[in-house]
Amino acid sequence: MIRIGVIGYGYWGPNIVRNFHAHDGSEVVLVCDKNPKCQERLRKAHPGMAYTTDEKEILNSPNIDAVAVVTPVWTHYELAKQALENGKHVFVEKPFTWTVAQAEELIELADRKNLKIMVDHTFLFTGAVKKIKEVVERRELGDLYYYDSLRVNLGLFQHDVNVIWDLAPHDLSIMDYVIAEKPEAVVATGQKHLNGVEDVAFITVYFPNKIIAHVNVNWLSPVKVRTTLIGGEKKMLVWNDLDADEKIKIYDKGVSMSSNPSNLHQLLVSYRSGDMWAPQVEQIEALRAETAYFLGCIQENTKPFNDGVAGLRVVRILEAADKSIRSRGEAVAL
Amino acid sequence: MIRIGVIGYGYWGPNIVRNFHAHDGSEVVLVCDKNPKCQERLRKAHPGMAYTTDEKEILNSPNIDAVAVVTPVWTHYELAKQALENGKHVFVEKPFTWTVAQAEELIELADRKNLKIMVDHTFLFTGAVKKIKEVVERRELGDLYYYDSLRVNLGLFQHDVNVIWDLAPHDLSIMDYVIAEKPEAVVATGQKHLNGVEDVAFITVYFPNKIIAHVNVNWLSPVKVRTTLIGGEKKMLVWNDLDADEKIKIYDKGVSMSSNPSNLHQLLVSYRSGDMWAPQVEQIEALRAETAYFLGCIQENTKPFNDGVAGLRVVRILEAADKSIRSRGEAVAL
Amino acid sequence: MIRIGVIGYGYWGPNIVRNFHAHDGSEVVLVCDKNPKCQERLRKAHPGMAYTTDEKEILNSPNIDAVAVVTPVWTHYELAKQALENGKHVFVEKPFTWTVAQAEELIELADRKNLKIMVDHTFLFTGAVKKIKEVVERRELGDLYYYDSLRVNLGLFQHDVNVIWDLAPHDLSIMDYVIAEKPEAVVATGQKHLNGVEDVAFITVYFPNKIIAHVNVNWLSPVKVRTTLIGGEKKMLVWNDLDADEKIKIYDKGVSMSSNPSNLHQLLVSYRSGDMWAPQVEQIEALRAETAYFLGCIQENTKPFNDGVAGLRVVRILEAADKSIRSRGEAVAL
Amino acid sequence: MIRIGVIGYGYWGPNIVRNFHAHDGSEVVLVCDKNPKCQERLRKAHPGMAYTTDEKEILNSPNIDAVAVVTPVWTHYELAKQALENGKHVFVEKPFTWTVAQAEELIELADRKNLKIMVDHTFLFTGAVKKIKEVVERRELGDLYYYDSLRVNLGLFQHDVNVIWDLAPHDLSIMDYVIAEKPEAVVATGQKHLNGVEDVAFITVYFPNKIIAHVNVNWLSPVKVRTTLIGGEKKMLVWNDLDADEKIKIYDKGVSMSSNPSNLHQLLVSYRSGDMWAPQVEQIEALRAETAYFLGCIQENTKPFNDGVAGLRVVRILEAADKSIRSRGEAVAL
Repeated sequence: MIRIGVIGYGYWGPNIVRNFHAHDGSEVVLVCDKNPKCQERLRKAHPGMAYTTDEKEILNSPNIDAVAVVTPVWTHYELAKQALENGKHVFVEKPFTWTVAQAEELIELADRKNLKIMVDHTFLFTGAVKKIKEVVERRELGDLYYYDSLRVNLGLFQHDVNVIWDLAPHDLSIMDYVIAEKPEAVVATGQKHLNGVEDVAFITVYFPNKIIAHVNVNWLSPVKVRTTLIGGEKKMLVWNDLDADEKIKIYDKGVSMSSNPSNLHQLLVSYRSGDMWAPQVEQIEALRAETAYFLGCIQENTKPFNDGVAGLRVVRILEAADKSIRSRGEAVAL
Repeated sequence: MIRIGVIGYGYWGPNIVRNFHAHDGSEVVLVCDKNPKCQERLRKAHPGMAYTTDEKEILNSPNIDAVAVVTPVWTHYELAKQALENGKHVFVEKPFTWTVAQAEELIELADRKNLKIMVDHTFLFTGAVKKIKEVVERRELGDLYYYDSLRVNLGLFQHDVNVIWDLAPHDLSIMDYVIAEKPEAVVATGQKHLNGVEDVAFITVYFPNKIIAHVNVNWLSPVKVRTTLIGGEKKMLVWNDLDADEKIKIYDKGVSMSSNPSNLHQLLVSYRSGDMWAPQVEQIEALRAETAYFLGCIQENTKPFNDGVAGLRVVRILEAADKSIRSRGEAVAL
Repeated sequence: MIRIGVIGYGYWGPNIVRNFHAHDGSEVVLVCDKNPKCQERLRKAHPGMAYTTDEKEILNSPNIDAVAVVTPVWTHYELAKQALENGKHVFVEKPFTWTVAQAEELIELADRKNLKIMVDHTFLFTGAVKKIKEVVERRELGDLYYYDSLRVNLGLFQHDVNVIWDLAPHDLSIMDYVIAEKPEAVVATGQKHLNGVEDVAFITVYFPNKIIAHVNVNWLSPVKVRTTLIGGEKKMLVWNDLDADEKIKIYDKGVSMSSNPSNLHQLLVSYRSGDMWAPQVEQIEALRAETAYFLGCIQENTKPFNDGVAGLRVVRILEAADKSIRSRGEAVAL
Repeated sequence: MIRIGVIGYGYWGPNIVRNFHAHDGSEVVLVCDKNPKCQERLRKAHPGMAYTTDEKEILNSPNIDAVAVVTPVWTHYELAKQALENGKHVFVEKPFTWTVAQAEELIELADRKNLKIMVDHTFLFTGAVKKIKEVVERRELGDLYYYDSLRVNLGLFQHDVNVIWDLAPHDLSIMDYVIAEKPEAVVATGQKHLNGVEDVAFITVYFPNKIIAHVNVNWLSPVKVRTTLIGGEKKMLVWNDLDADEKIKIYDKGVSMSSNPSNLHQLLVSYRSGDMWAPQVEQIEALRAETAYFLGCIQENTKPFNDGVAGLRVVRILEAADKSIRSRGEAVAL
């Protein structure tokens, strides 16, 4: 039985508590939130579960094996560091840390102490992303051309981070998982309209082999859109996460070029248009699968694929995007 | 009766011929296309209409008052220049010219000779764009925050221009018309996958007053999308040009900030969500209205709002986007 | 404090328990389900809440003021009757009863004992139906022409009732609420394919003043559809219950006839097509509002609008539809 | 070269003329419309094509091999009869005739004179219907359960026929083609609101083997819908004719029953839910294919599958639907 302490019981914390508490192999033994109002919410959902407003009680407890850090990003480093130093595994919200340097230090610390870090990139455990990964790995799309994501809606405004740090970690972690190449450079543009942080932003990520990724995030859209296009040499994929039944559509469409060697100006373009196929997508609660996976990694002493290093790759792009956006689109090498 | 000569009878030329020939105030007296196969197509559509493969017959004819230039962009300058020098008004396909310098020279020449140049930004004459312009001018949206357009589909590949020059002139001309501010800088990113020109591109345009525009153009998308979001302080608008009946939706949604002077960290965000309204959009053939407007400008000696100067504003952004994309997103001041 | 006993803890029962238990003015004091497995589910959701497998404990308890009957339809009459006879108010699942005669008897009994019956037509408490009712009552649509509902999906098969008794009560209760006329006759057609009860059915209900209603229910549809069209003289309404944000759209569209008295064969039809308007729909949990309303009716001794008489009107149509479907569409007068 | 005379140049006639004139194997030699205004429209579209307002010129001409009857339905019988008596093949608009008796007489007459009758059920030549027919014939859906079509929009009102005769022939001819069983009975309901003919109607057709068909036609809908669900034992199909790219979707979804012999009350229902597949649908002008097929049937002296007998099957259902609707849904045996 792995004993879990959860720090942070705001918007996402209750889901973490509920899932870790439901598994046979773990139990939540203590929940912390500085806001004392959270105690009543916890009591209603989990009568009898212990509660504190002092995170030290979790970080120092000898009865806790792993700590879930479900707090704002700028607190991740300090909390995760103390947990690791005290010999506890860490499950931490995305984005992993506030800086690349913090992430590197935590990874090093966990390695030294043989502890696990898992970054909660929940989307990687959804049926949709698992299916996309599978399709790309089977090379059904052929060589990838582009990854283009649109993630816009009205609010919820954050006061301390911009729309990139709020929404783009989803896209960047999925992109990192699916493309599986090392990105070369980031260009970001955007604008602040209301409270001093960017609420509209556009990020381009350059990869080797002519792969290009683009992420459009916006807190000021009147409509909610969650759509990603992935173009490949052989086929193309559309992922609409808001479609209840047909989230993923794979199009047997493509373009081929055949140059006529006798005349370089006569490139022949041929279009191919065939069937569309919407594979069934597993209906699971992603967080249920992810928390179970975390427990398994601890028990079997294996590295999660969404470990600190994966979290660092996302933070590196976020940091570069922030730098680029401040200079109106200057390319930042990674 | 204004006598029109049309140079170019490929994809778009037949629409130009049909419309100019249908008006009471004009007739097409000569059509030119270097490709002799076009003659048969013209004969079927307009039996008895004169045809030539030599554009000089149009440019030098004393019986022609205005020339429609419906040819690839790199030929616009030379054809328009000769037409103007020979005292003919010019109706020219978008984009206006291949360079800013060419556009400036043509504008100056037309002014000197008191001739009209109209650039065929057809979308400006659609019911949808007229309605958007009206809504923005009435200040229904309040101050504008952003203009974000997605224009993607599979093909049609151009061999000589990239996807920016092919698709973005639509968005840039509409943006120029609706926003009515002077843009400050352009950042463009993109990638070439097939035939040596960009087939995927993302353009950010910075305007004064924190207005930001973004255009996503892509020849390699499995699905066709033509959607523009326009966010304002008071309301927000979604234009889906592929929706047959409800192209424009105006959302009474917004976000307001009220800072608490006693505590700068406690910015209060309030969301407003009300009704949605889809105004009826005039169902007209835009090119019919545009060609009639061209005739009217000639007859009344007035400047079209989509004149050479408007065409130049679009070319200026295209030129800057090309420069920016080559340097991976370096901001190019306008 | 109104003390509630709930009989039935299958699919819908947990929602009833949760809502009645959450109100300040009521508490659930005992839950019954014959299936002993339900006890564990109840314990997890409401630790400490009393449970029994014997409904008599609820029906005979002097400590219970009102009974919620959340069991299969053929048990409603017996359970409700005993509850009423024992002086308890009754909240009963739709459809109210299995026969018209049963409904009439229960209504008479409740009246005699001055007790409340409320039939759980939950949809009447949704923001969408409330908005439709408001729009129709304000006569925005003008005289009604038709009410046409499509409610199809795959499963969930019932073994004991056909698709009409399973799905149509929703539509019939909404139709009854919105149209507010006494229906004249019912025609129903359908077919049994799998387990001896109709899984596909089509119901027409004739109303006075040329109003016609139609309900299409189907357990064998590959896609889920929940769409109702309501046509009126002045405007028309489309309700798509699966649209998260724009459930109700009101079209300023219509047809008018003006007969030319000099020539009866020359009826002039004129179409009107204007804006579309999607009013904001209140986002509430309908069952929360409905259970609160039930408590209010008890406390203030007022008749709920969705009382036994309203439930009877729906049962009357269901019974007629069953009779009509057995005779392949014979009209059954109401 | 088959010489065609076309009677009727209103809404659909121009398409008939254009297609028959474009084929290499036929030419339109004379067009007739009683309305003299049609002459100018014909002249613009086909300069030099002969025109008359007297249909006798076509029916009696020795230079005409086949007559296309593109006039209101009540004139079909008389015009087709004269054409056949004068030895001409007949291509006639849907619905074939105004009564079953007329259709039978024309079929007999054509057989006797060895002439072709083809009824213009254009939809049967669309890529979508051809694909549906292919899928059903390959038994991909397994045994059919139901065919359910929704064909609604605002107008276009007919003065002389009701909405059933106007819109349902499309559905009935497709249903006849796809189901390929002899229908047993028809039940129809509906209502007249404006000009004395039904503008809203619902038709159920009973087939052997528990197949049931339903057609919902409506001239008073604010939105245009063209959707057909076809349910089968193995798979299910949705045809949305308004979807530009994915008209047909085939769902690997189904329900199976397995009765437990030891307990007849315990029928086990199992649901199957798998991938969805949208086969590419041929993009052709259906009328182009249909008119070519008519020419081929004449040249090779073969019977078209959409001959008079097919047209009669549709008229038989229309006649029965009219009878049923007048008696509020009385089942009319076929």
